[in-house]
Amino acid sequence: MSDDFAGHHDRKDRKERLEQLRAALVGAGVDGFIIPHADEYQGECLAPCAERLRWVTGFSGSAGVAVVLTDAAALFVDGRYTIQARQQVDREFFTLYDIIEHPPAGWCEAHLGPGWKLAYDPWLHTGVQVKDLKAACEAVGARFVALERNPVDELWHDRPAPPSAMAMPHPVEFAGQSAAEKMAMLSQSLEKAKADAAVLTLSDSIAWAFNIRGVDIAHIPVVLSYAIIRREGRPTLFIAPEKLRKEVRFHLEPFADLATPNRFEADLKALGGRKARVLVDSTFTPARVEELLANAGAGIVAGRDPCLLPKARKNSVEIEGARRAHLRDGEAMARFLAWLDREAPSGGVDEISAAERLKSLREQSGELVDVSFATISASGPHAAMPHYQASPASNRPLKSGEIYLIDSGGQYRDATTDITRTLIIGGQATPPMRDRFTRVLKGHIALSMARFPAGTSGAQLDCLARIALWRAGLDFNHGAGHGVGSFLSVHEGPARIAKTGHVPLEPGMILSNEPGYYAEGQYGIRIENLLLVGEAEAIQGGDAKMHGFEMLSFTPIDLRLVEPSLLDPREVDWLNDYHAEVRRRIAPRLDGDALAWLESTTEPLAP
Amino acid sequence: MSDDFAGHHDRKDRKERLEQLRAALVGAGVDGFIIPHADEYQGECLAPCAERLRWVTGFSGSAGVAVVLTDAAALFVDGRYTIQARQQVDREFFTLYDIIEHPPAGWCEAHLGPGWKLAYDPWLHTGVQVKDLKAACEAVGARFVALERNPVDELWHDRPAPPSAMAMPHPVEFAGQSAAEKMAMLSQSLEKAKADAAVLTLSDSIAWAFNIRGVDIAHIPVVLSYAIIRREGRPTLFIAPEKLRKEVRFHLEPFADLATPNRFEADLKALGGRKARVLVDSTFTPARVEELLANAGAGIVAGRDPCLLPKARKNSVEIEGARRAHLRDGEAMARFLAWLDREAPSGGVDEISAAERLKSLREQSGELVDVSFATISASGPHAAMPHYQASPASNRPLKSGEIYLIDSGGQYRDATTDITRTLIIGGQATPPMRDRFTRVLKGHIALSMARFPAGTSGAQLDCLARIALWRAGLDFNHGAGHGVGSFLSVHEGPARIAKTGHVPLEPGMILSNEPGYYAEGQYGIRIENLLLVGEAEAIQGGDAKMHGFEMLSFTPIDLRLVEPSLLDPREVDWLNDYHAEVRRRIAPRLDGDALAWLESTTEPLAP
Repeated sequence: MSDDFAGHHDRKDRKERLEQLRAALVGAGVDGFIIPHADEYQGECLAPCAERLRWVTGFSGSAGVAVVLTDAAALFVDGRYTIQARQQVDREFFTLYDIIEHPPAGWCEAHLGPGWKLAYDPWLHTGVQVKDLKAACEAVGARFVALERNPVDELWHDRPAPPSAMAMPHPVEFAGQSAAEKMAMLSQSLEKAKADAAVLTLSDSIAWAFNIRGVDIAHIPVVLSYAIIRREGRPTLFIAPEKLRKEVRFHLEPFADLATPNRFEADLKALGGRKARVLVDSTFTPARVEELLANAGAGIVAGRDPCLLPKARKNSVEIEGARRAHLRDGEAMARFLAWLDREAPSGGVDEISAAERLKSLREQSGELVDVSFATISASGPHAAMPHYQASPASNRPLKSGEIYLIDSGGQYRDATTDITRTLIIGGQATPPMRDRFTRVLKGHIALSMARFPAGTSGAQLDCLARIALWRAGLDFNHGAGHGVGSFLSVHEGPARIAKTGHVPLEPGMILSNEPGYYAEGQYGIRIENLLLVGEAEAIQGGDAKMHGFEMLSFTPIDLRLVEPSLLDPREVDWLNDYHAEVRRRIAPRLDGDALAWLESTTEPLAP
Repeated sequence: MSDDFAGHHDRKDRKERLEQLRAALVGAGVDGFIIPHADEYQGECLAPCAERLRWVTGFSGSAGVAVVLTDAAALFVDGRYTIQARQQVDREFFTLYDIIEHPPAGWCEAHLGPGWKLAYDPWLHTGVQVKDLKAACEAVGARFVALERNPVDELWHDRPAPPSAMAMPHPVEFAGQSAAEKMAMLSQSLEKAKADAAVLTLSDSIAWAFNIRGVDIAHIPVVLSYAIIRREGRPTLFIAPEKLRKEVRFHLEPFADLATPNRFEADLKALGGRKARVLVDSTFTPARVEELLANAGAGIVAGRDPCLLPKARKNSVEIEGARRAHLRDGEAMARFLAWLDREAPSGGVDEISAAERLKSLREQSGELVDVSFATISASGPHAAMPHYQASPASNRPLKSGEIYLIDSGGQYRDATTDITRTLIIGGQATPPMRDRFTRVLKGHIALSMARFPAGTSGAQLDCLARIALWRAGLDFNHGAGHGVGSFLSVHEGPARIAKTGHVPLEPGMILSNEPGYYAEGQYGIRIENLLLVGEAEAIQGGDAKMHGFEMLSFTPIDLRLVEPSLLDPREVDWLNDYHAEVRRRIAPRLDGDALAWLESTTEPLAP
């Protein structure tokens, strides 16, 4: 999911931008400006025109926030990005902070004084964020003020144009449910929430609800737009007319009203004028939307985006699509790994060429729309960075005796895939590598085998992926799994398997299972498959309604990295059963070298 | 922790009270009244004079809430109490609801109309609760109004007097830190929170901060009182003068101002008059306190009760006390279980006589102040109710071939204990009993053995106690563990091992480890020890700072209920090591039959 490392600018350029921004702040009569990574759709991935944080600071990660005051500036990033930020950001201009240990609110309290004004762009912050920052400012007698025009946009002269690519319908053949049926279901959600309407701002919620897809954002097939859905009456989609060719108009017009984005504010005000009760998810909705509604007289119903759960619970057509796409994806992975095993030990493969090879193998299916995120292709010590992105400058050959990690996925019209494999090039792993790999594998197996009562959340399961590492004094610093969309975001909420994943796992949800271990400067390990939540088969004597996981990903796990003495018999059985399934499902799609490779790598572990 | 089942009233009496209450509501010009279980100190256990919910409804559980309207009334209780509520409450007058599935806010929305007034006593609800209920009322155009006088108190003519027992000092010999030192530490917390003062309303926070104990509440050695602590200057304790004998005055006066409770409101207003910034924990503080402060001009600093964490992190003296008290407690448990094994199979022991015997054995130490909660002594099917309380009417003999569960603890001046053992009377368990018991034991062992990174919360560990049950389609419907005080509450926040336990486990915290399994109408199983969180020994090659648990409770686990084939070698080792430790620590305190019993029950499992 990481952005690439391109876009370096020289120091002079960066300094000039900061000076211009400070001058603009003085001109606007404010003492500082806060620049989040987020755009006005609050998605994780941005169009190039929305890379404001990068334009100001140089930092290109997928999360972070900067505060620029007239005499100080700070950039806050999370643990995934501290190394990258140090490489990309000039620390003469920006002090770097860990956003968890030193959140921006505390920094603002320390750096602002009575009467100061910290400014923000209300389209780029959610209601929840504004509330926190406002409180931090007010605690020291300062004010947090919304600006009508974003000063970065005014200064950014060569700013790319907003995306204007065509939207396309996502047919029922893949979606499993017509948009009209989804609207009827959403209308019931609004009735239950006692709301007359809801504002949708998350692009993947809109793509799901309206059964449309697009190419506005790299790798995430959404169309940047806003929508208002109504308990009674047709929904409105606010979308640039140039994105609408005949085919998609023909799809949308029977059930939806189409409006240009500049009508959005007027329609929000109109809802207020009618005193409508409007459902707003303050976690994802720009503060400006909530403010416009409230000022116009609407009643705000605080609640969750009504698309989140139905989008996450895949229907039977989407599930069939996922099963199908994963076989296709497994075939490409097997061909790739067979090629890698043959070519890499002699030194002829590097990170970039490996990623390109895998992409071309996925393309050979004829059904790849795009990769589902920028492939993480990491050799040796690079694998210790969970979000490493190879660039021409960093590109490193795969070397015998070293670990190679590849985390990749495909966007197919019937599903989104995401898989990570960690390999030992040449086959000779050191004992510590085997120990760590096996502990990561034990976590992966524990999650795969888990049966859990209906209502259990991912937060409750997260430790299963860690306990074998914890026992050895080890851990990894990311969640054990995230939700995955259906030809949509590869990171899809609301469920996840992580400390913060408090949403119950429900049948139909697809989640990754990806424990890891990272030895800084040496190597990294991650084993990732996608799992489908389903109702577990009843067990004789069992009295609780249980859920469990169905395996979706079928690609061999590198047994040369496994230390069998660390596995208990149940784990060995799981591994052998998994490899037998991989062979049963993928072998019929292969021939020649790739088939021979699959057969040898899926041999059962000796007991 | 359950209350007993006494206090039945005939239907006529109950009906009359409800009619009187409704007449009083009409008189007060309101349409309904909400009656929580909580008292004005927001503790879990109440003085008899605060049992308003029970007086109105007949329900005696430790959690619940009733709403009485002129034409409808409802009682909301959680899953632990549904059976008990059905037995105690006349459903002609009160409709019963599960408080999780049907919370009072939703019921109010359905039963109130525009212009209605639902009244509440602002001393009995926290700020958080008032906010929720206010929103529910306003959503349907009704109002949520505070009453100056609680109508239940006005009608309850034979209401017991408030507790007036003497407070006593809790000396540094047990507390490990003087109250003056604690006040200095709290002053630093206030400085960090940018607050001038904090209001303490939780009785155990006050007991901890002022190093006082009392007998106002059964089994919980607190003194009902309020306190204001200050960043600069002496704290004020608002306490009835009749509770203060010379000894405790002598302890308090050097560092604190003493005031009568009726000065509390005036002092809150005085804080407001000085525009003080006052730290308030809205989760535990009566809404009335926050309202008085805000109306008088104080700045409310929302935050956590500053005593919660330091109280939970036991200091070295408290830890030594806990280790000592648990040996004393383990001796009583061993003598009890030896006696039970000898006497129960012939049918001469019942639930009440067993609980009395155990209490008298704890008393023989000469150091028992009180039991730490009403003992749960449950024979056969009664054990399936996690909060069962034996009464003369329900009392049941222990029978050969049946399960017996005893959950009990002691309040000693140096520690609070809490332990549960499940036994098979006569020694002959059925295969399902052994299967379930062993799965519960596997959960107990997994938690005991857990090593986890600093910062891990109890919510993250909870599933370790369940995974072996889940695998068989089973679960239990309560948390795996709760915090325990030091000669204080047996249920102490803020950490717990449960889905909702989001506070990191820190060295010095004492928590229970008590997975269970309940077969309704047949039997129940629970195995509970107390654990002390500490820093784990470093492991060669480990790179994360790890915590682990030290065992505090030493009492044999009934091996006649264990199915060894379900245990893996590491679990067998744990069990044998545990029993060797029990023998090493407890045998020197025993002789005769009890010693012989201990030696035979701590024999290692055959490999």
